[in-house]
Amino acid sequence: MSGGSDEGPRRVGRPRADRLRAPSGRPPREELLCAAAELFTVRGYAATTTRAVAERAGMRQATMYHYFGGKEELLAELLESTVAPSLALSRRLLAETGRPAARRLWELCRSDVLLLCGGPHHLGALYLLPELHRPRLEPFRRMRDELRAHYRALLDAIPPGAEPAADGAALALRGDLIFGLVEGVMLVRRCDPARPVAALAEAAADAALRIAGAAPAR
Amino acid sequence: MSGGSDEGPRRVGRPRADRLRAPSGRPPREELLCAAAELFTVRGYAATTTRAVAERAGMRQATMYHYFGGKEELLAELLESTVAPSLALSRRLLAETGRPAARRLWELCRSDVLLLCGGPHHLGALYLLPELHRPRLEPFRRMRDELRAHYRALLDAIPPGAEPAADGAALALRGDLIFGLVEGVMLVRRCDPARPVAALAEAAADAALRIAGAAPAR
Repeated sequence: MSGGSDEGPRRVGRPRADRLRAPSGRPPREELLCAAAELFTVRGYAATTTRAVAERAGMRQATMYHYFGGKEELLAELLESTVAPSLALSRRLLAETGRPAARRLWELCRSDVLLLCGGPHHLGALYLLPELHRPRLEPFRRMRDELRAHYRALLDAIPPGAEPAADGAALALRGDLIFGLVEGVMLVRRCDPARPVAALAEAAADAALRIAGAAPAR
Repeated sequence: MSGGSDEGPRRVGRPRADRLRAPSGRPPREELLCAAAELFTVRGYAATTTRAVAERAGMRQATMYHYFGGKEELLAELLESTVAPSLALSRRLLAETGRPAARRLWELCRSDVLLLCGGPHHLGALYLLPELHRPRLEPFRRMRDELRAHYRALLDAIPPGAEPAADGAALALRGDLIFGLVEGVMLVRRCDPARPVAALAEAAADAALRIAGAAPAR
């Protein structure tokens, strides 16, 4: 955690042995993504060189370039992995029109929190990088927009309860707040990494239904 | 936005004229904080040098060191500015025991969202920096913990409504989710900077009361 800029100007010499990781048995591509996830989240994206990623994964930089075009490609792939499973789930849930929408929204929220907070690395920290606007990250941004639209669609499908129905603008805002809550849980969890994720995920899903104006589905 | 690492190794020569800002009339300390806020959020913290901050503020690096001990001190001060006003407000609100707690919690949420999303720079982006665990940022972390405790205390003070009272653990979790929602709004806003902050802040405060199990205070 200390230092952080010691990889800055490229140095000549052998990689330090303590930086090399024992072979994990993982395929090289996966090993590189793991190394990048660790370094980007612990040391920071800007402060991490592709050389440091390669070393951490136990391979030479030239070998790394065989698998990834560069640092931005590693970042893009990591970011997409934080959305792709939730997007696949939300597509399935949207199609299950025979089941109550509140229950489906609850499941999406719970699963999304588990995905965002559950992995070994705090990939959500990458959501606030200034690099997020770069063209290479357009697919990630599109996937996240689509997921957000699915949150809204599930919310729209919840029949109005005892309270008066909200208008379109209010509903859109509420959908975005639920989306913000789910992503905001990452910020809570970061302060308190010992907190069990399962309870947090269910509480967040309950809270989302409260925002939706539907009774918690449990 | 492009480039970003062009400040890396220190270069010799005159600062480029287009980097120098016209004197704004602000005191130098404030000018430096403004410059740091812009560069840290647009270019990234790790990629910004103290020299770049000084140049952006239209002064020499040596002059900057007269006001700030270094980059981490600039970061600490910026982060503290995202919490201090909300903390002052939450202390006042906690003392106003004659007013309904739900209304006070609503006011805190609204004001906190306005603070987090309202400034010219997206300072909330700094909340996920890996550098946040450094000792120099301990005062910020303590202030944020205290603010979180005040959210919980206001939530605890809301009398249970029609629904059965939640136990202590459930209440603590709910308090943290409200805190997460308020901070999470930054992530929503970032995708959609055109959205008016005032409406978002009131909608977030309404949503917080829904999570609390209290009817929106408006």
